Amino acid sequence: MNANKIPDIIIGRLPIYLRALQRMTDKGIHTTSSQELGERVGISAAQIRKDISQFGEFGKQGTGYRIPFLIDKLREILQIDRIWDVAVVGAGDVGHALARYQGFVNRGFRIVMVFDSDQSKVGQQIGEFVVQDTSDMIEAIQKAGVKVAMLSVPASAAQDVTDMLVKAGVKAILNYAPISLTVPDDVRVQHIDPATHLQRMTYYL
Amino acid sequence: MNANKIPDIIIGRLPIYLRALQRMTDKGIHTTSSQELGERVGISAAQIRKDISQFGEFGKQGTGYRIPFLIDKLREILQIDRIWDVAVVGAGDVGHALARYQGFVNRGFRIVMVFDSDQSKVGQQIGEFVVQDTSDMIEAIQKAGVKVAMLSVPASAAQDVTDMLVKAGVKAILNYAPISLTVPDDVRVQHIDPATHLQRMTYYL
Repeated sequence: MNANKIPDIIIGRLPIYLRALQRMTDKGIHTTSSQELGERVGISAAQIRKDISQFGEFGKQGTGYRIPFLIDKLREILQIDRIWDVAVVGAGDVGHALARYQGFVNRGFRIVMVFDSDQSKVGQQIGEFVVQDTSDMIEAIQKAGVKVAMLSVPASAAQDVTDMLVKAGVKAILNYAPISLTVPDDVRVQHIDPATHLQRMTYYL
Repeated sequence: MNANKIPDIIIGRLPIYLRALQRMTDKGIHTTSSQELGERVGISAAQIRKDISQFGEFGKQGTGYRIPFLIDKLREILQIDRIWDVAVVGAGDVGHALARYQGFVNRGFRIVMVFDSDQSKVGQQIGEFVVQDTSDMIEAIQKAGVKVAMLSVPASAAQDVTDMLVKAGVKAILNYAPISLTVPDDVRVQHIDPATHLQRMTYYL
Protein backbone atom coordinates (compact mmCIF):
# COMPACT_ATOMS: atom_id res chain seq x y z
CA MET A 1 0.00 0.00 0.00
CA ASN A 2 1.49 3.32 -1.06
CA ALA A 3 0.04 6.68 0.00
CA ASN A 4 1.04 8.21 -3.31
CA LYS A 5 -0.82 5.67 -5.39
CA ILE A 6 -4.36 5.90 -3.99
CA PRO A 7 -6.32 8.95 -5.22
CA ASP A 8 -7.37 11.30 -2.41
CA ILE A 9 -10.99 11.08 -3.51
CA ILE A 10 -10.97 7.37 -2.59
CA ILE A 11 -9.37 8.09 0.78
CA GLY A 12 -12.15 10.64 1.33
CA ARG A 13 -14.83 7.98 0.90
CA LEU A 14 -13.33 5.48 3.37
CA PRO A 15 -14.43 7.43 6.51
CA ILE A 16 -17.97 7.50 5.10
CA TYR A 17 -17.97 3.72 4.62
CA LEU A 18 -16.52 3.33 8.11
CA ARG A 19 -19.21 5.51 9.69
CA ALA A 20 -21.97 3.48 8.03
CA LEU A 21 -20.33 0.16 9.01
CA GLN A 22 -19.97 1.26 12.63
CA ARG A 23 -23.63 2.23 12.69
CA MET A 24 -24.59 -1.21 11.29
CA THR A 25 -22.54 -2.86 14.04
CA ASP A 26 -24.37 -0.73 16.62
CA LYS A 27 -27.59 -2.17 15.25
CA GLY A 28 -26.33 -5.76 15.54
CA ILE A 29 -25.66 -6.26 11.80
CA HIS A 30 -22.45 -8.26 11.24
CA THR A 31 -22.25 -8.87 7.49
CA THR A 32 -23.00 -6.68 4.49
CA SER A 33 -22.62 -6.42 0.72
CA SER A 34 -21.35 -3.58 -1.50
CA GLN A 35 -24.98 -3.25 -2.59
CA GLU A 36 -26.36 -2.75 0.94
CA LEU A 37 -23.51 -0.48 2.03
CA GLY A 38 -23.97 1.52 -1.18
CA GLU A 39 -27.64 2.12 -0.44
CA ARG A 40 -26.77 3.40 3.03
CA VAL A 41 -24.17 5.89 1.85
CA GLY A 42 -25.56 6.81 -1.57
CA ILE A 43 -22.58 5.45 -3.55
CA SER A 44 -22.78 2.70 -6.20
CA ALA A 45 -21.91 -0.88 -5.26
CA ALA A 46 -19.38 -0.97 -8.11
CA GLN A 47 -17.60 2.10 -6.75
CA ILE A 48 -17.46 0.66 -3.24
CA ARG A 49 -16.03 -2.65 -4.49
CA LYS A 50 -13.44 -0.76 -6.53
CA ASP A 51 -12.49 1.56 -3.65
CA ILE A 52 -12.10 -1.21 -1.10
CA SER A 53 -10.23 -3.55 -3.48
CA GLN A 54 -7.48 -0.91 -3.74
CA PHE A 55 -6.31 -2.08 -0.33
CA GLY A 56 -6.70 -5.86 -0.62
CA GLU A 57 -9.33 -8.57 -0.78
CA PHE A 58 -11.53 -7.85 2.25
CA GLY A 59 -14.76 -9.46 1.04
CA LYS A 60 -15.80 -12.70 -0.62
CA GLN A 61 -17.77 -13.06 -3.83
CA GLY A 62 -21.28 -14.13 -2.85
CA THR A 63 -20.92 -13.76 0.93
CA GLY A 64 -19.89 -10.09 1.05
CA TYR A 65 -18.04 -8.42 3.92
CA ARG A 66 -17.69 -9.39 7.56
CA ILE A 67 -18.31 -5.98 9.10
CA PRO A 68 -16.00 -6.16 12.19
CA PHE A 69 -13.12 -7.29 9.96
CA LEU A 70 -13.76 -4.54 7.40
CA ILE A 71 -14.00 -1.92 10.19
CA ASP A 72 -10.64 -3.07 11.58
CA LYS A 73 -9.04 -2.89 8.14
CA LEU A 74 -10.44 0.59 7.38
CA ARG A 75 -9.32 1.87 10.79
CA GLU A 76 -5.85 0.50 10.11
CA ILE A 77 -5.69 2.06 6.63
CA LEU A 78 -6.86 5.44 7.95
CA GLN A 79 -4.45 5.13 10.89
CA ILE A 80 -7.20 5.54 13.45
CA ASP A 81 -6.45 2.21 15.11
CA ARG A 82 -4.84 4.58 17.62
CA ILE A 83 -6.05 7.78 19.33
CA TRP A 84 -4.86 11.14 17.98
CA ASP A 85 -4.58 14.08 20.37
CA VAL A 86 -6.20 17.22 18.98
CA ALA A 87 -5.81 20.91 19.83
CA VAL A 88 -8.75 23.31 19.37
CA VAL A 89 -7.81 26.92 18.59
CA GLY A 90 -10.58 29.48 19.04
CA ALA A 91 -12.98 29.21 21.99
CA GLY A 92 -16.00 30.93 20.43
CA ASP A 93 -19.31 29.20 19.69
CA VAL A 94 -17.77 26.66 17.31
CA GLY A 95 -14.82 25.97 19.62
CA HIS A 96 -17.26 25.44 22.49
CA ALA A 97 -19.31 23.03 20.41
CA LEU A 98 -16.16 21.10 19.41
CA ALA A 99 -14.74 20.94 22.93
CA ARG A 100 -18.00 19.49 24.24
CA TYR A 101 -18.78 17.30 21.19
CA GLN A 102 -19.16 13.61 22.10
CA GLY A 103 -18.87 12.42 18.48
CA PHE A 104 -15.08 11.93 18.47
CA VAL A 105 -15.24 9.09 20.99
CA ASN A 106 -14.30 5.78 19.32
CA ARG A 107 -13.54 7.53 16.05
CA GLY A 108 -9.83 8.02 16.66
CA PHE A 109 -9.62 11.49 18.21
CA ARG A 110 -9.40 13.09 21.63
CA ILE A 111 -9.31 16.83 22.23
CA VAL A 112 -6.54 17.59 24.71
CA MET A 113 -6.22 21.38 24.71
CA VAL A 114 -8.19 24.52 23.82
CA PHE A 115 -6.62 27.91 23.03
CA ASP A 116 -7.85 31.46 22.55
CA SER A 117 -6.05 34.81 22.33
CA ASP A 118 -8.93 36.71 23.96
CA GLN A 119 -7.81 37.35 27.55
CA SER A 120 -11.44 37.29 28.73
CA LYS A 121 -11.66 33.66 27.55
CA VAL A 122 -8.24 32.47 28.78
CA GLY A 123 -8.69 30.54 32.03
CA GLN A 124 -12.37 29.91 31.32
CA GLN A 125 -13.65 26.34 31.72
CA ILE A 126 -15.24 24.61 28.68
CA GLY A 127 -16.41 21.10 29.42
CA GLU A 128 -13.30 19.45 30.87
CA PHE A 129 -10.84 22.00 29.48
CA VAL A 130 -9.38 25.27 30.72
CA VAL A 131 -8.82 27.69 27.83
CA GLN A 132 -5.10 28.42 27.41
CA ASP A 133 -3.50 31.53 25.94
CA THR A 134 -2.63 31.25 22.23
CA SER A 135 0.71 32.87 23.01
CA ASP A 136 1.65 29.65 24.86
CA MET A 137 0.38 27.46 22.04
CA ILE A 138 3.51 26.65 20.06
CA GLU A 139 5.36 25.45 23.13
CA ALA A 140 2.39 23.50 24.52
CA ILE A 141 1.74 21.72 21.23
CA GLN A 142 5.41 20.91 20.65
CA LYS A 143 5.76 19.57 24.19
CA ALA A 144 2.66 17.37 23.88
CA GLY A 145 3.57 16.26 20.34
CA VAL A 146 0.10 17.13 19.03
CA LYS A 147 -0.16 16.67 15.23
CA VAL A 148 -3.84 17.47 14.64
CA ALA A 149 -5.66 20.78 15.22
CA MET A 150 -9.11 22.23 14.68
CA LEU A 151 -9.19 25.91 13.84
CA SER A 152 -12.25 27.91 14.88
CA VAL A 153 -10.88 31.47 14.91
CA PRO A 154 -12.20 34.39 12.79
CA ALA A 155 -11.10 34.44 9.12
CA SER A 156 -8.89 37.47 9.78
CA ALA A 157 -6.77 35.51 12.30
CA ALA A 158 -6.82 32.12 10.59
CA GLN A 159 -3.62 32.36 8.51
CA ASP A 160 -1.50 33.72 11.39
CA VAL A 161 -2.71 30.98 13.73
CA THR A 162 -2.09 28.40 10.98
CA ASP A 163 1.50 29.58 10.63
CA MET A 164 1.91 29.08 14.40
CA LEU A 165 0.39 25.59 14.22
CA VAL A 166 2.74 24.64 11.38
CA LYS A 167 5.69 25.94 13.39
CA ALA A 168 4.53 23.83 16.33
CA GLY A 169 4.63 20.69 14.18
CA VAL A 170 0.91 20.23 13.43
CA LYS A 171 0.40 18.21 10.21
CA ALA A 172 -3.41 18.10 9.88
CA ILE A 173 -5.73 21.09 10.30
CA LEU A 174 -9.51 21.05 10.24
CA ASN A 175 -10.39 24.63 9.33
CA TYR A 176 -13.73 26.15 10.36
CA ALA A 177 -12.72 29.68 9.27
CA PRO A 178 -14.28 30.65 5.92
CA ILE A 179 -10.90 31.20 4.23
CA SER A 180 -8.44 29.03 2.29
CA LEU A 181 -5.18 28.52 4.18
CA THR A 182 -1.65 28.41 2.81
CA VAL A 183 0.43 25.58 4.29
CA PRO A 184 3.61 23.65 3.38
CA ASP A 185 3.22 20.49 1.26
CA ASP A 186 3.54 18.15 4.23
CA VAL A 187 0.55 19.69 6.05
CA ARG A 188 -3.03 18.68 5.16
CA VAL A 189 -6.02 21.00 5.49
CA GLN A 190 -9.72 20.14 5.35
CA HIS A 191 -12.43 22.81 5.41
CA ILE A 192 -15.72 22.88 7.20
CA ASP A 193 -17.72 25.82 5.89
CA PRO A 194 -21.50 25.37 6.11
CA ALA A 195 -22.19 28.12 3.54
CA THR A 196 -20.24 26.31 0.80
CA HIS A 197 -22.19 23.09 1.51
CA LEU A 198 -25.48 25.00 1.34
CA GLN A 199 -24.42 26.73 -1.91
CA ARG A 200 -23.65 23.37 -3.45
CA MET A 201 -27.27 22.33 -2.86
CA THR A 202 -29.10 25.50 -3.93
CA TYR A 203 -27.80 24.92 -7.46
CA TYR A 204 -30.32 22.08 -7.69
CA LEU A 205 -33.32 23.84 -6.13
CA MET B 1 -27.17 25.22 -18.91
CA ASN B 2 -28.68 21.91 -17.78
CA ALA B 3 -28.50 20.72 -14.17
CA ASN B 4 -28.23 17.11 -15.33
CA LYS B 5 -25.23 17.74 -17.54
CA ILE B 6 -22.76 19.27 -15.09
CA PRO B 7 -21.10 16.72 -12.77
CA ASP B 8 -21.83 17.35 -9.09
CA ILE B 9 -18.11 17.41 -8.32
CA ILE B 10 -17.78 20.57 -10.46
CA ILE B 11 -20.78 22.18 -8.75
CA GLY B 12 -19.07 21.40 -5.45
CA ARG B 13 -15.98 23.40 -6.44
CA LEU B 14 -17.87 26.56 -7.47
CA PRO B 15 -18.62 27.67 -3.87
CA ILE B 16 -14.90 27.31 -3.10
CA TYR B 17 -13.96 29.54 -6.04
CA LEU B 18 -16.66 31.98 -4.99
CA ARG B 19 -15.37 32.16 -1.42
CA ALA B 20 -11.83 32.90 -2.63
CA LEU B 21 -13.06 35.52 -5.13
CA GLN B 22 -15.12 37.29 -2.48
CA ARG B 23 -12.11 37.36 -0.20
CA MET B 24 -10.00 38.88 -3.02
CA THR B 25 -12.66 41.55 -3.53
CA ASP B 26 -12.57 42.31 0.20
CA LYS B 27 -8.84 42.93 -0.21
CA GLY B 28 -9.40 45.29 -3.15
CA ILE B 29 -8.29 42.86 -5.87
CA HIS B 30 -10.51 43.18 -8.97
CA THR B 31 -8.98 40.89 -11.60
CA THR B 32 -7.46 37.44 -11.39
CA SER B 33 -6.26 34.49 -13.46
CA SER B 34 -6.97 30.75 -13.23
CA GLN B 35 -3.37 30.46 -12.06
CA GLU B 36 -3.74 32.91 -9.16
CA LEU B 37 -7.16 31.59 -8.14
CA GLY B 38 -5.77 28.06 -8.31
CA GLU B 39 -2.95 28.89 -5.92
CA ARG B 40 -5.45 30.32 -3.44
CA VAL B 41 -7.72 27.28 -3.42
CA GLY B 42 -5.22 24.50 -4.09
CA ILE B 43 -6.74 23.44 -7.42
CA SER B 44 -4.89 23.44 -10.77
CA ALA B 45 -5.38 26.36 -13.17
CA ALA B 46 -6.41 23.91 -15.90
CA GLN B 47 -9.14 22.43 -13.71
CA ILE B 48 -10.48 25.89 -12.83
CA ARG B 49 -10.55 26.94 -16.50
CA LYS B 50 -12.36 23.72 -17.39
CA ASP B 51 -14.88 24.01 -14.53
CA ILE B 52 -15.77 27.63 -15.25
CA SER B 53 -15.95 27.15 -19.02
CA GLN B 54 -18.80 24.65 -18.46
CA PHE B 55 -21.05 27.64 -17.89
CA GLY B 56 -19.86 30.06 -20.57
CA GLU B 57 -16.93 32.28 -21.46
CA PHE B 58 -16.40 34.38 -18.35
CA GLY B 59 -12.74 35.24 -18.79
CA LYS B 60 -10.48 36.43 -21.60
CA GLN B 61 -7.32 34.78 -22.82
CA GLY B 62 -4.43 36.90 -21.55
CA THR B 63 -6.43 39.27 -19.33
CA GLY B 64 -8.09 36.71 -17.06
CA TYR B 65 -11.27 37.24 -15.06
CA ARG B 66 -12.95 40.43 -13.87
CA ILE B 67 -13.71 39.33 -10.31
CA PRO B 68 -17.02 41.20 -9.70
CA PHE B 69 -18.40 39.81 -12.98
CA LEU B 70 -17.29 36.25 -12.17
CA ILE B 71 -18.77 36.53 -8.65
CA ASP B 72 -22.10 37.64 -10.11
CA LYS B 73 -22.09 34.75 -12.58
CA LEU B 74 -21.21 32.15 -9.93
CA ARG B 75 -23.91 33.49 -7.59
CA GLU B 76 -26.40 33.26 -10.42
CA ILE B 77 -25.37 29.69 -11.32
CA LEU B 78 -25.55 28.58 -7.68
CA GLN B 79 -28.86 30.43 -7.29
CA ILE B 80 -27.59 32.50 -4.39
CA ASP B 81 -28.33 35.79 -6.16
CA ARG B 82 -31.30 35.66 -3.75
CA ILE B 83 -31.54 34.94 0.02
CA TRP B 84 -32.67 31.47 1.14
CA ASP B 85 -34.50 31.15 4.44
CA VAL B 86 -33.08 28.36 6.60
CA ALA B 87 -34.50 26.40 9.54
CA VAL B 88 -32.17 25.01 12.23
CA VAL B 89 -33.38 21.84 13.96
CA GLY B 90 -31.62 20.99 17.22
CA ALA B 91 -30.69 23.72 19.68
CA GLY B 92 -27.70 22.03 21.32
CA ASP B 93 -24.11 23.30 21.08
CA VAL B 94 -23.97 23.02 17.28
CA GLY B 95 -27.44 24.57 16.85
CA HIS B 96 -26.37 27.44 19.11
CA ALA B 97 -23.23 28.00 17.08
CA LEU B 98 -25.21 27.97 13.81
CA ALA B 99 -27.94 30.32 15.08
CA ARG B 100 -25.31 32.85 16.15
CA TYR B 101 -22.90 32.31 13.22
CA GLN B 102 -22.24 35.51 11.26
CA GLY B 103 -20.75 33.69 8.26
CA PHE B 104 -23.99 33.29 6.30
CA VAL B 105 -24.35 37.04 5.74
CA ASN B 106 -23.85 37.89 2.06
CA ARG B 107 -23.48 34.23 1.16
CA GLY B 108 -27.12 33.62 0.28
CA PHE B 109 -28.64 32.34 3.54
CA ARG B 110 -30.58 33.65 6.51
CA ILE B 111 -31.64 31.54 9.45
CA VAL B 112 -35.29 32.27 10.21
CA MET B 113 -36.31 29.64 12.78
CA VAL B 114 -34.79 27.27 15.36
CA PHE B 115 -36.52 24.11 16.66
CA ASP B 116 -35.93 21.60 19.44
CA SER B 117 -38.06 18.83 20.93
CA ASP B 118 -36.58 19.28 24.43
CA GLN B 119 -39.21 21.19 26.42
CA SER B 120 -36.49 22.77 28.58
CA LYS B 121 -35.09 24.43 25.42
CA VAL B 122 -38.39 25.45 23.82
CA GLY B 123 -39.01 29.15 24.45
CA GLN B 124 -35.30 29.78 25.16
CA GLN B 125 -33.65 32.72 23.37
CA ILE B 126 -30.62 32.02 21.11
CA GLY B 127 -29.24 35.14 19.51
CA GLU B 128 -32.27 36.71 17.86
CA PHE B 129 -34.36 33.50 17.84
CA VAL B 130 -36.81 31.90 20.24
CA VAL B 131 -36.55 28.10 20.12
CA GLN B 132 -39.80 26.59 18.81
CA ASP B 133 -41.21 23.14 19.54
CA THR B 134 -40.35 20.52 16.90
CA SER B 135 -43.96 19.34 17.08
CA ASP B 136 -44.95 22.64 15.42
CA MET B 137 -42.18 22.36 12.82
CA ILE B 138 -43.97 20.87 9.80
CA GLU B 139 -46.68 23.51 9.88
CA ALA B 140 -44.27 26.39 10.53
CA ILE B 141 -41.93 25.38 7.69
CA GLN B 142 -44.77 24.81 5.23
CA LYS B 143 -46.33 28.15 6.11
CA ALA B 144 -43.04 30.01 5.69
CA GLY B 145 -42.11 28.07 2.53
CA VAL B 146 -38.65 27.23 3.89
CA LYS B 147 -36.73 24.88 1.54
CA VAL B 148 -33.37 24.64 3.35
CA ALA B 149 -32.66 23.18 6.80
CA MET B 150 -29.66 22.47 9.01
CA LEU B 151 -29.94 19.41 11.17
CA SER B 152 -28.07 19.39 14.49
CA VAL B 153 -29.97 16.75 16.46
CA PRO B 154 -28.48 13.52 17.92
CA ALA B 155 -27.90 10.66 15.45
CA SER B 156 -30.72 8.66 17.03
CA ALA B 157 -33.30 11.36 16.15
CA ALA B 158 -31.88 12.44 12.79
CA GLN B 159 -33.86 10.18 10.43
CA ASP B 160 -37.22 10.90 12.12
CA VAL B 161 -36.62 14.65 11.99
CA THR B 162 -35.50 14.32 8.36
CA ASP B 163 -38.77 12.58 7.48
CA MET B 164 -40.62 15.53 9.05
CA LEU B 165 -38.52 18.04 7.11
CA VAL B 166 -39.21 16.22 3.84
CA LYS B 167 -42.93 16.18 4.65
CA ALA B 168 -42.74 19.93 5.28
CA GLY B 169 -41.31 20.49 1.80
CA VAL B 170 -37.61 20.98 2.62
CA LYS B 171 -35.39 20.17 -0.39
CA ALA B 172 -31.87 20.73 0.95
CA ILE B 173 -30.57 19.47 4.30
CA LEU B 174 -27.18 20.18 5.84
CA ASN B 175 -26.73 17.29 8.25
CA TYR B 176 -24.49 17.63 11.34
CA ALA B 177 -25.60 14.30 12.81
CA PRO B 178 -22.99 11.54 12.29
CA ILE B 179 -25.37 9.31 10.31
CA SER B 180 -26.30 8.91 6.63
CA LEU B 181 -29.91 9.99 5.95
CA THR B 182 -32.43 8.40 3.60
CA VAL B 183 -34.35 10.97 1.53
CA PRO B 184 -36.39 11.01 -1.70
CA ASP B 185 -34.55 11.70 -4.98
CA ASP B 186 -35.63 15.34 -5.12
CA VAL B 187 -34.06 16.17 -1.73
CA ARG B 188 -30.31 16.92 -1.42
CA VAL B 189 -28.25 16.16 1.67
CA GLN B 190 -24.76 17.35 2.55
CA HIS B 191 -22.90 16.11 5.63
CA ILE B 192 -20.76 17.98 8.08
CA ASP B 193 -19.01 15.46 10.27
CA PRO B 194 -15.66 16.64 11.65
CA ALA B 195 -14.50 13.09 12.47
CA THR B 196 -14.70 11.98 8.81
CA HIS B 197 -12.66 15.04 7.77
CA LEU B 198 -10.05 14.26 10.42
CA GLN B 199 -9.94 10.59 9.39
CA ARG B 200 -9.32 11.59 5.81
CA MET B 201 -6.17 13.42 6.94
CA THR B 202 -4.73 10.87 9.37
CA TYR B 203 -4.25 8.49 6.42
CA TYR B 204 -1.37 10.74 5.34
CA LEU B 205 0.29 11.22 8.75
